[in-house]
Amino acid sequence: MYQQIADALREQIADGRLAPDAKLPTEAELRTMYDVSRETVRKALGLLVNEGLVVSARPQGHFVRRRQPMVFRPQAEFRKRPHSKEMDAFMTEFSAEGREPRQLIEVAIVEPPAEVAKRLHLQPGALVAVRKRVRYLDGEPFNINDSYFPLDLVRDSEIMRPEDITRGANEVLAELGHRQVRALTELYVRMPTPDESRRLDLGPGTPVGYHLLTGFTEEGKPVRVAITVLPGDRHVISHELFREEAP
Amino acid sequence: MYQQIADALREQIADGRLAPDAKLPTEAELRTMYDVSRETVRKALGLLVNEGLVVSARPQGHFVRRRQPMVFRPQAEFRKRPHSKEMDAFMTEFSAEGREPRQLIEVAIVEPPAEVAKRLHLQPGALVAVRKRVRYLDGEPFNINDSYFPLDLVRDSEIMRPEDITRGANEVLAELGHRQVRALTELYVRMPTPDESRRLDLGPGTPVGYHLLTGFTEEGKPVRVAITVLPGDRHVISHELFREEAP
Repeated sequence: MYQQIADALREQIADGRLAPDAKLPTEAELRTMYDVSRETVRKALGLLVNEGLVVSARPQGHFVRRRQPMVFRPQAEFRKRPHSKEMDAFMTEFSAEGREPRQLIEVAIVEPPAEVAKRLHLQPGALVAVRKRVRYLDGEPFNINDSYFPLDLVRDSEIMRPEDITRGANEVLAELGHRQVRALTELYVRMPTPDESRRLDLGPGTPVGYHLLTGFTEEGKPVRVAITVLPGDRHVISHELFREEAP
Repeated sequence: MYQQIADALREQIADGRLAPDAKLPTEAELRTMYDVSRETVRKALGLLVNEGLVVSARPQGHFVRRRQPMVFRPQAEFRKRPHSKEMDAFMTEFSAEGREPRQLIEVAIVEPPAEVAKRLHLQPGALVAVRKRVRYLDGEPFNINDSYFPLDLVRDSEIMRPEDITRGANEVLAELGHRQVRALTELYVRMPTPDESRRLDLGPGTPVGYHLLTGFTEEGKPVRVAITVLPGDRHVISHELFREEAP
């Protein structure tokens, strides 16, 4: 029975009858509507909270979660402007007025995590420089972006300073003789670790996209791994595809 | 305290000391190791189950979840073979021996879901043909792939028959005069709906990637929406990026 109540509410959320931020019927109202116990109503609401569709804000009640995702476009790495008018329109649709991004940057020299060492083909003992960023939008943490570079390549460069690099770290790498001409991206979909939940202030039922980008030079040398943690309730990840052959 | 126990186990899973399918220490062993109550041990294990890192198989105990993801490569839409040797190596690494894909296909004429109607620019009342597929690997459901076409475009074509189309539905569309030359992809990361959980036989703590691909003709007319539901524990979604400008 609680499944049926959840199904009915989910359908109303999906088709917009219950809009973002709308208040759901109260527990008492749902009990009367469906002639069921408080227990059953609570199980139905709990299911929707776990699915990330509804937030519980006691004592006011339950509300439809507002999802206003930000477009994450891995292709911006190599071309700032999209090529198709469809992508332009799509990004315009998702860009909200008055949202001001802000970021905290931290730089460190560390032993690389195993997944980074493997992708950068590092010898045991080799160190990496990491630029760790948390990006905020309207004061809320939006995503985590950590970029790893073999220390040998970037020592004493601008990359080691905890400030924004206006022309981009990729441009600095190119000036150092390590221009990235292609990249391989991997996206894993999973629940957050407790540390990610804390840093990103995630609610229950919020999975993340774990995005790894490995950048290669013309000679096929991996020179950078960027790891982005994207909360599912705040992002849509988008690509343009073309029939034309890439070089 | 249960967080610390979970952290320690998580670290061992991450660095491979606890390999896929390995048995975790028993509840009794963990109680002795950390000198804590059964309650605390259970909370620690419950946390790892919810994160999808561990499976509980009573009465045998808890085991490290094996993740052997399949590469989902949206770019295969327009080029079968990857272009970089890095992507080739990556796909080889993830291809497992002896895994036989199999699929069930179902065709229907339906009113389009709102998200499909919007992307296909359909008038109210216009119908769509949908080819619904569930793909199995080694007898397990791997993903759901539903492709929607404006009914006006594909009526009486091969697309309406519930059989595999060897040369691909895209080729049939092209023969009908609606060749897709570009596409826009959107990926949303969220918890599964109960229906998806059932169709894909998902365990607890398993989010999904919800992938929409809209295909456009040269004139910018949308002629197809493909929706793929990708369980996070069974897929890695991967792209190649190139610095060279697309046309």
